[in-house]
Amino acid sequence: VSSRLAIWLLLAAVVACGNPQHAAVPAPAHDPLVPELDAIRRLATSAPRAFDVVRSLTDEVGARSAGSPGDKLAVAWARRAMPASGLRDVRTEPVMVKHWVRGEESAAVVSPFAHKLSVAALGGSVGARGLEAQVVMFDDLDALTKADTAGVAGKIVFLDTPMHRSRDGSEYGRVVPNRMRGAAVAAKLGAVGLLIRSVGSDHNRLPHTGMMREAPIPAAALSVPDAELLHRLVARGAPVRVTMTLGAHMEGTSESANVIGEVRGRELPSDIVLLGAHLDSWDLGTGAIDDGAGCAIALEAARLVAELPPPRRTLRVVLFANEEHGLDGGKAYAKAHAGEASHHVAALEADTGAGLVYRIRALGGPGTAAILASLVSHAALGIAADGKPAWGGADISPLRELGVPLVDVSQDTSDYFDFHHTANDTLDKIDPTSLEQAAVYFASVAYELATTPEEMGPIPPAERRSD
Amino acid sequence: VSSRLAIWLLLAAVVACGNPQHAAVPAPAHDPLVPELDAIRRLATSAPRAFDVVRSLTDEVGARSAGSPGDKLAVAWARRAMPASGLRDVRTEPVMVKHWVRGEESAAVVSPFAHKLSVAALGGSVGARGLEAQVVMFDDLDALTKADTAGVAGKIVFLDTPMHRSRDGSEYGRVVPNRMRGAAVAAKLGAVGLLIRSVGSDHNRLPHTGMMREAPIPAAALSVPDAELLHRLVARGAPVRVTMTLGAHMEGTSESANVIGEVRGRELPSDIVLLGAHLDSWDLGTGAIDDGAGCAIALEAARLVAELPPPRRTLRVVLFANEEHGLDGGKAYAKAHAGEASHHVAALEADTGAGLVYRIRALGGPGTAAILASLVSHAALGIAADGKPAWGGADISPLRELGVPLVDVSQDTSDYFDFHHTANDTLDKIDPTSLEQAAVYFASVAYELATTPEEMGPIPPAERRSD
Repeated sequence: VSSRLAIWLLLAAVVACGNPQHAAVPAPAHDPLVPELDAIRRLATSAPRAFDVVRSLTDEVGARSAGSPGDKLAVAWARRAMPASGLRDVRTEPVMVKHWVRGEESAAVVSPFAHKLSVAALGGSVGARGLEAQVVMFDDLDALTKADTAGVAGKIVFLDTPMHRSRDGSEYGRVVPNRMRGAAVAAKLGAVGLLIRSVGSDHNRLPHTGMMREAPIPAAALSVPDAELLHRLVARGAPVRVTMTLGAHMEGTSESANVIGEVRGRELPSDIVLLGAHLDSWDLGTGAIDDGAGCAIALEAARLVAELPPPRRTLRVVLFANEEHGLDGGKAYAKAHAGEASHHVAALEADTGAGLVYRIRALGGPGTAAILASLVSHAALGIAADGKPAWGGADISPLRELGVPLVDVSQDTSDYFDFHHTANDTLDKIDPTSLEQAAVYFASVAYELATTPEEMGPIPPAERRSD
Repeated sequence: VSSRLAIWLLLAAVVACGNPQHAAVPAPAHDPLVPELDAIRRLATSAPRAFDVVRSLTDEVGARSAGSPGDKLAVAWARRAMPASGLRDVRTEPVMVKHWVRGEESAAVVSPFAHKLSVAALGGSVGARGLEAQVVMFDDLDALTKADTAGVAGKIVFLDTPMHRSRDGSEYGRVVPNRMRGAAVAAKLGAVGLLIRSVGSDHNRLPHTGMMREAPIPAAALSVPDAELLHRLVARGAPVRVTMTLGAHMEGTSESANVIGEVRGRELPSDIVLLGAHLDSWDLGTGAIDDGAGCAIALEAARLVAELPPPRRTLRVVLFANEEHGLDGGKAYAKAHAGEASHHVAALEADTGAGLVYRIRALGGPGTAAILASLVSHAALGIAADGKPAWGGADISPLRELGVPLVDVSQDTSDYFDFHHTANDTLDKIDPTSLEQAAVYFASVAYELATTPEEMGPIPPAERRSD
């Protein structure tokens, strides 16, 4: 409370307005929000809280895949965490989610040499009990797509595409179709199972799970060292046989919730800047980087904004249900709030870990370029634009289809895909300083978007669908 | 064959002797072996083979813990690999080994919050089925040793000593007593189970197994992230309860073997330089760094030496059985060869991974300093001595007790304990260039020890026991 008072006094002095709580901040010719952005940085430096948030979520809830006991605990956690971060009008909106369960799982090479394999069923996979078959290896999904049924039928398809590190996550986009569509394509060719090299850039014996679009046959990811071993064995030329047992099964649907809280706007409270992250995680780790970090960024950004004079518009934080396994929360939010879509002046999502922010992108209407230029002009913020359109984020992609303008506050994901969707997604992978820096950037951008007199305007209809 | 011929011709030219195959190499005043050591380096650079050896062992055999099917396959593999590396008189000597089996294992925090824990039973652990108890945490074995029965009886002891990286492996020596003696000390105080923070310097969800001196209660290692989580939970103050199920059990004894091959000495064939490594591995990984790398170093060193004019004495390579779980092979060798202990002019062991060699140490009789000085004087070899006594290695420690002189060719172990005794001990962790460099150093030192007219002489009786 005393730090909030200090900020108020500071801002009162700097902007020299008679009643800062209700009067609009006067708009100088350049960088109108510099005092507020300075205040955000100072607050974050003197008393950072983002790491405390992700520690609380990962220690007190941990794994929280859709429909699991952790999912419900996470919703309760978020209801407590939001008010503690200065958010008001905290409420939940119910979301029905599918409840898929992993069960026990194992796999092994049985010939020409015996090796245990480190595997994780892909999300939605059907089960398998001692399924044994010969392996047929393909470099990628394209090669599989061109294959003949004769070489695939009755076999276990192995998709083996190496993935490198990339700051912008582009490598993930290149390789993830193996996981999303591999099982469907393999099944169409008569395969009895699918193994993919993990969509990950590490070399640990920890496979990367993740959702599939369709799951007609048992499907699992191999850790990268296991995939490299299987590759070498297949490359020797003699038939390689593998066995797999997956306890994976669907337990039906379950009720979860989007959790929503706000910092109410002082002039246009019905106009909204949405800052999202997702509350659910995969089941293998404690969901620290995916997406505990995003939840912490969103809640810490809200706290920092809540310490300032209220922005002109409302900052709405949404912690979405079940991003990982079907985007149920994002779809439910867009459906429930379609009527106020035109009041969403911008949407941002934090779902790329705890890395440093290095870039900003936007996608919207005629006002977009001016707002982006203003965001970039804050030299002290130090973020660069490359002029390409924003992607948004998975949870807010249904809003994109409604024309809601998007802003990407892009984080360095060079090591994100080392840990993403693995048992290794734990608190120790987060650098507290880097996480706090990301929260500062999200807070600064959200505050400016909620306060600037300008608006980006809706995304033109032709650009509302992402790939 | 043609490369061997080239070396012979080269050496014939350089040393200018009439019949290099049978005559002694003339001894110049300084660096008598420079041409041979140059030849070793050239051979290793033009056609390195060490990585092929460890790839063959890890791909074709893989995990090979004592008594397992992989153990027998490894012995057969070594019998084939030795002749291919130029070793002759290849034979096995039987070794009875204990056969411990891990089985299925799991553990979880049940209160105050639910978390799955990533655990691995420690070698020799007895089993447990749904054992549940409160956790009592200690910083290290010393603190546990001073504890009262009242605070420990009926609980699961948690030993939580962080381990850092160290080039010389000294951190392992500092922390490993937790694993070796923790269960015995905890049991004496009435504990019902033991969990240790893994003796490892990584942050992966992959626990480090390893042997215990005594195993009176169920005992397992937590991965480092799990140990950090458990630490934070216990530090909150409320009682923390954990459950563990370990399928671990002893299956009795089994026959394995030390595998031995030689490059016969040209003048003093009964005098031996022993170069050892161990053939067994733990069960979790494929035993690439521990000790596939050492096997590759020993076999590659033998190949390089076998390409040269024969050394004066015999180079004997021994791939020992069951180093990991009781040193059965090392003990059996010392017992079987006690009669020729005085003919072992030096023993070396490669059992610290695939890191670069950076140092040499020796321990022996009155001739030790001169020989060490000569080894160090080969400037092109670039290894430094620090004057401290050699440790030897686990498998050759029983020879130390018989007075056999020891030489340490010390490798950088900075990342060795990231992977040691985990599922992550796989081929991809080995840098082929670094592995080959180590083989060159071992070959060079072994060749000189086998060829120099001097001898170190036996270790004085007072220095024959290691700590």
